[in-house]
Formats: sequence, structure tokens, C-alpha cells
Amino acid sequence: MSTTLTRVNVTGMTCGHCVASVTEEIGEIAGVEGVDVTLETGEVAITSDRELARADIAAAVAEAGYGLA
Amino acid sequence: MSTTLTRVNVTGMTCGHCVASVTEEIGEIAGVEGVDVTLETGEVAITSDRELARADIAAAVAEAGYGLA
Repeated sequence: MSTTLTRVNVTGMTCGHCVASVTEEIGEIAGVEGVDVTLETGEVAITSDRELARADIAAAVAEAGYGLA
Repeated sequence: MSTTLTRVNVTGMTCGHCVASVTEEIGEIAGVEGVDVTLETGEVAITSDRELARADIAAAVAEAGYGLA
């Protein structure tokens, strides 16, 4: 059992609703165990039980209506 | 049948999610028929079938997590 930590930066989030949307969409990626979003900086820390593809994260963020920096 | 138009200004909205929250909460006030929110200015135009109490609007806006200017 190992945990992978992936960090990305998301642009365009302005409020707690945005954080909730991003957290929800990233949380639906297979293997994701935790999502920690810092609104002020756009930093998102994702813990997962496997390596994540950046394309999958980008797709989830886009689904929420935002983009990767 | 007459329609009343009430205008208020809401502070703190930053994105479409905020607009949706404010629209939903104001829409639940008895008699409200329509809610038109302009995100950029915070202006909210409310149409209703009766006079609305500003206190009721303030309570709805507070419920959504925002305030009246």
C-alpha cells in the first residue's frame, strides 16, 4: 500500500463553490483518495493509490470549469 | 395581476456559482417570480407578485452566504 502525492495548480477559482467543484471532479478520478485545494494560491494536492495521468487531472479540472496553470 | 420589481445590491459574489446560490435562495421567497443577477455589479432585480420585505431578501441573501450592500 503506497500513496502517491500529485500537485497541480488550478486557475480561475474565486470562491468556495469553485473549490467544491474542483474537489468533486478530481475526486472522481479512479484511485484518488484525497483532494486538498488552497483557494488563495490555486494549489491542489491530490493523494491517490496509483500514479495519476496529468491528462486525467486536466480533464477533471476542465469538467469543473477551470484550467491547469 | 401586477408585477413588482425590487432592486438590491449583493456583495461578495465572485463567480457563477455565487450567482446560482443567490438566485436560488431569493427564488424561494414567497411571491418571487424571477431573479436576475448581474455578477459584475452585484445588482439583483427581483420580480414578484407582491411587495417584498427587504428583511426577507436580506435573510435569503445571507442564507446563500452573501450580504446586501
